[in-house]
Amino acid sequence: MWLNYQTVDDSERLQEYRAMLSDIYLAGGSETIDAAKAELNDGLGQLLGETPNLLNSIPEAGVVAGTIQNSDWLRNLDLDLSRLGPEGYLIRKIDTDGRSKIIIAANQDIGVLYGVFGLLRHVQTHQTLDDISIERSPKVEYRMVNHWDNLDRLVERGYAGLSLWEWGTLPEYKHPRYTDYARFNASIGINASVINNVNADPEILTDQFLEKVSVLADVFRPYGIQLFLSINFQSPQRIGGLDTSDPLNPDVNEWWAEKADEIYELIPDFGGFLVKADSEGQPGPFAYNRTHAEGANMLAKALEPHGGMVVWRAFVYDPAQSDRFREAYDEFVPLDGQFMDNVILQVKNGPIDFQPREPFSPLFGAMEETNTMIELQVTQEYFGFSQHLAYMGTLFTEALQADTYAKGEGSTVAKVVDGSLFDYEHTGMAAVINPGTDENWTGHPFVQSSWYAFGRLAWDHTLSAEQIADEWLRMTFTNNIDFVDPVKEIMMESREAGVNYRMPLGLTHLYDQGHHYGPAPWTADLPRPDWTAVYYHKADDNGIGFDRTVTGSNAIEQYHEPVAERFGDLNSVSDDYLLWFHHVGWDHEMNSGRTLWEELVHKYYKGVEQVRGMQQQWESIKGLIDSERYEHVKALLDIQERDAVRWRDSCVLYFQSFSGKPIPDQYEKPEHDLDHYIELEKTKYVPDPWYN
Amino acid sequence: MWLNYQTVDDSERLQEYRAMLSDIYLAGGSETIDAAKAELNDGLGQLLGETPNLLNSIPEAGVVAGTIQNSDWLRNLDLDLSRLGPEGYLIRKIDTDGRSKIIIAANQDIGVLYGVFGLLRHVQTHQTLDDISIERSPKVEYRMVNHWDNLDRLVERGYAGLSLWEWGTLPEYKHPRYTDYARFNASIGINASVINNVNADPEILTDQFLEKVSVLADVFRPYGIQLFLSINFQSPQRIGGLDTSDPLNPDVNEWWAEKADEIYELIPDFGGFLVKADSEGQPGPFAYNRTHAEGANMLAKALEPHGGMVVWRAFVYDPAQSDRFREAYDEFVPLDGQFMDNVILQVKNGPIDFQPREPFSPLFGAMEETNTMIELQVTQEYFGFSQHLAYMGTLFTEALQADTYAKGEGSTVAKVVDGSLFDYEHTGMAAVINPGTDENWTGHPFVQSSWYAFGRLAWDHTLSAEQIADEWLRMTFTNNIDFVDPVKEIMMESREAGVNYRMPLGLTHLYDQGHHYGPAPWTADLPRPDWTAVYYHKADDNGIGFDRTVTGSNAIEQYHEPVAERFGDLNSVSDDYLLWFHHVGWDHEMNSGRTLWEELVHKYYKGVEQVRGMQQQWESIKGLIDSERYEHVKALLDIQERDAVRWRDSCVLYFQSFSGKPIPDQYEKPEHDLDHYIELEKTKYVPDPWYN
Repeated sequence: MWLNYQTVDDSERLQEYRAMLSDIYLAGGSETIDAAKAELNDGLGQLLGETPNLLNSIPEAGVVAGTIQNSDWLRNLDLDLSRLGPEGYLIRKIDTDGRSKIIIAANQDIGVLYGVFGLLRHVQTHQTLDDISIERSPKVEYRMVNHWDNLDRLVERGYAGLSLWEWGTLPEYKHPRYTDYARFNASIGINASVINNVNADPEILTDQFLEKVSVLADVFRPYGIQLFLSINFQSPQRIGGLDTSDPLNPDVNEWWAEKADEIYELIPDFGGFLVKADSEGQPGPFAYNRTHAEGANMLAKALEPHGGMVVWRAFVYDPAQSDRFREAYDEFVPLDGQFMDNVILQVKNGPIDFQPREPFSPLFGAMEETNTMIELQVTQEYFGFSQHLAYMGTLFTEALQADTYAKGEGSTVAKVVDGSLFDYEHTGMAAVINPGTDENWTGHPFVQSSWYAFGRLAWDHTLSAEQIADEWLRMTFTNNIDFVDPVKEIMMESREAGVNYRMPLGLTHLYDQGHHYGPAPWTADLPRPDWTAVYYHKADDNGIGFDRTVTGSNAIEQYHEPVAERFGDLNSVSDDYLLWFHHVGWDHEMNSGRTLWEELVHKYYKGVEQVRGMQQQWESIKGLIDSERYEHVKALLDIQERDAVRWRDSCVLYFQSFSGKPIPDQYEKPEHDLDHYIELEKTKYVPDPWYN
Repeated sequence: MWLNYQTVDDSERLQEYRAMLSDIYLAGGSETIDAAKAELNDGLGQLLGETPNLLNSIPEAGVVAGTIQNSDWLRNLDLDLSRLGPEGYLIRKIDTDGRSKIIIAANQDIGVLYGVFGLLRHVQTHQTLDDISIERSPKVEYRMVNHWDNLDRLVERGYAGLSLWEWGTLPEYKHPRYTDYARFNASIGINASVINNVNADPEILTDQFLEKVSVLADVFRPYGIQLFLSINFQSPQRIGGLDTSDPLNPDVNEWWAEKADEIYELIPDFGGFLVKADSEGQPGPFAYNRTHAEGANMLAKALEPHGGMVVWRAFVYDPAQSDRFREAYDEFVPLDGQFMDNVILQVKNGPIDFQPREPFSPLFGAMEETNTMIELQVTQEYFGFSQHLAYMGTLFTEALQADTYAKGEGSTVAKVVDGSLFDYEHTGMAAVINPGTDENWTGHPFVQSSWYAFGRLAWDHTLSAEQIADEWLRMTFTNNIDFVDPVKEIMMESREAGVNYRMPLGLTHLYDQGHHYGPAPWTADLPRPDWTAVYYHKADDNGIGFDRTVTGSNAIEQYHEPVAERFGDLNSVSDDYLLWFHHVGWDHEMNSGRTLWEELVHKYYKGVEQVRGMQQQWESIKGLIDSERYEHVKALLDIQERDAVRWRDSCVLYFQSFSGKPIPDQYEKPEHDLDHYIELEKTKYVPDPWYN
């Protein structure tokens, strides 16, 4: 992972660091300060190649860290920490008594810990301490990771081993990985963890499990991480012995209030509940003719006395509707203003479901009176699982920087989410992460980079994907520029490559139902049309794409102007979203001068070429890192190339069956016919439990 | 694991080793010799704290290793290696030209590798090289580990994470753990691995999987490990497109012959098939009115041209029968002599199913004309999964040393199995092991010791369980006698403790159906009576135990005399097997002078006391090993104590409902009533996928 404290191999820097960082004083005595001490001791010990001295008094030259409450010396510096808030920190080089010190100052101990991680990152990336002067504070309140871990330890869409939470040995055994997990998260500013799947097992709220859960909360607490639980809306019936879960029933309300009391007895800083309700078979308030707001508010009332939050997912779609795109907006916008203050709506970045590329969800900018956070996906459900390299930093920044125009130009999704646009009571960003028992935590070693990027962006959405990739590579592998530069290029290109070989030009969801690995654009005839692929691409002899303009589902009306107009006009919509919004003829002339058919073929072939380029670049760095990680990524890129070809050939041959047009001569021909690929998808044994 | 090459901390020994082992010459150039070189280089490098010199010529003083075919120098020593066989080795200190050398000599390269591991073990356990003179060769031909790994990577009865075999990235990626796995096995002489579950998925024989499997075989080959596959008897129908799997049908025969050809094309040294047929729902020859022999011989014929083996399991039991104990014997003894030479019957150590204690299976000693191997269980299906400490070395030696009297006194199970009693064509020992993706491979760190013990005993069944425990502790943890002695005591007592708190005095199978973790002696009313607990203990107001004498099922008739007589006589049967063979009155006077009821209570309480003693002994070694493993085992012993109390109280209270007698005053009273424990077992969420 990125807390890979390798001894600094730049001798000048090493000398500088040793001079400034060998003597350390940390003020205060909380568990959080103890964690900061341990991290500095281990981290600097390895980075500097010698254990630092943890002093009980202010060093002449060295590090002084703490809150101004806990350190007279820091308080006497008269620093202005008002801008930092409760979690921010300041790192500054100051000169006193003719000697230089590095100070880390904060308003609360957790800020000190974040500052320690900030300093360590600075050293890990070999930056100078000369004139260091940093002030950092998070832009959103809840920086949250969501686990889709089932209680049987299988992880839905996980692809990295079993769940981290070893229920069988809890509460007795605190696996060391729980602490490492907390360290990784705290190091990037994550302060909230929902430890179980949104498709929630009601058992999580039984005495037996809460006792185990409370041990995890104890481990997370020093690292500033609040523990949340996903709950099942029918818990009062399933484990409580009631005969209803109606949110307006007094017994149900009392049951939840008592359950909240019980939880807070065990976990005084419990974060709250995450709820997936009336979505994909999960129970919710609709069974009692109640609204999402009534359902969420019932839980919010139970948690409110304790300061807990309800995070309510907006991922809903009704099979009866004609366009899945429209549904979350149509269900939630009428409820704007009806949710209690301690409810946050959690909205996926796009209107469908974490696809390789989606336009931003029109709910961003539409919920002026309802706290709204974004939900992103680190785990590669739609990006080749743990087999493909696909850095999500570029996707995340694309989503955050999209302009909703809700209050005119510059009303970006980021400004919705950080609360500055609508002055939300509570703010947050969430991502579905996938760590499991795999030795590298995430399956593909580069999935780590997306987890890292999410944390960094949740703290500060103004960072660039490239800057984050640079940091992560240096911290995780090496500062050697001959490695960092080409591999950063791989990362920056990887998501676009994945779009190109899977579903370019605004195509989406060309998967089979169930697992989402291989290509299956031919998928039809499923119990729900919105689980098929043909529902999304609508290819026919005339053309391809989903008409969401006024002549179609008119989903574009959900956007503010001029976004709606731009998406709705065949001439102004960007190629990236063309087939999201328009059914376009095969001969339509594109900006490139090619026809749509030619452009589609071009993109599919380009995707494969990009992967081959990634392979070459990776092979160019052989010898610059350990052979174990080198060989692992190399083998995975071989798999990715094989799969990219399969995606390309499957899709091109399938769409050719509609367009009736040839694959231009300059392209290598598919090795097999369409039937071969259809059969391959059908018979291909999917060899991991989570693949289905 | 036990290949934990810690630098020798005994300075005298270190000096001795450095003097003798720093210069090394290995003759030959095979992959196996390369593996031996790598192991010596890494192993001695760590043990001696300095990398040895791998020379291209005979050193003046140092190690010379190789076959006499590959080394003129070794051949000129005129060693007599005839007793060693193809896999044996000799390690000897010799003086030539006034200088001492350590030689490792063998007839084949694999013997050299085994010798290298023998030397490393010698050094790991800090034994002197003075006058070293060792000759070792294995007592059985197939030293086999069985994996119950499903292709979806869940491991039946595994409890140590997901399957080692990462099908999703094969054949492209050779995970480094595959090589480590081969090293661990080779280091203890294991030479055969059945990589998939006996409840076999037919997909394993598809092209797609065979290509992946062949990569594993390539990794195993240098380490002398033959790869076997478990097969589904209905494969010709399930993946072959035939409409029958009748073993006498020519198309079926041809299908298997072609499949064998295809496999050997990919894996020239493929070992063969393991088959679970007509057992617990698995298909077999009975569907076509054919016998086990006809089923096995069909496969044997397909494999014979390639030198492959069929391992046919004798674990069969028909719910219609009155005593499960009798069934394997009754089914197989009439077939003795009908199996082809390349078939081995695989028989579990006891007549039921890997219970905490069983008498030996009467099939040992009854199959004079049929190759018969023993099947043992390392994974703790019935011993508390990965939560309890239960060293199986004592169980294995008890099973192997049992005397069948098949050819008079001294006809031990070991002598049946090593072929010396009946002059078998092929011999073997197998164990079901559980390694998975857990960082320590086996879940509970001490499950490793049973894997180790199995390998050592398969090589040489005359070793003692205590000697093996001693070796394993030194290699895995430390040679510090203050650690080794008390922890060896823990290990030696652990299995008996597990018998006592679960099912003493010959009780057996007091589990619920499905998972086999907690106590459920009250289990009745299941689809099959032989899946209930009451079937086995038969407790009533008069007494307890299964009458297998002539007044009962007369299963004792399956034993040779005087075994049958000894088990059948209430006065001569040992307490350990009392309730296996007799229904005994609650007031029956035991050898101890206590009544049966008092003795039963005594044993249950003793089991808990033994676990508490294990806890104390473990706490006494704090600080002598790393805190991570110390804390892990400590927490697991806490869980074991909790569970042992639960077993004790559940069973004592339940049996008390029949005996109507009090728990004697000197014992602590159960904390809850029987209903509590019944409810606990019912509602206890079993929190890992493999628990069910």
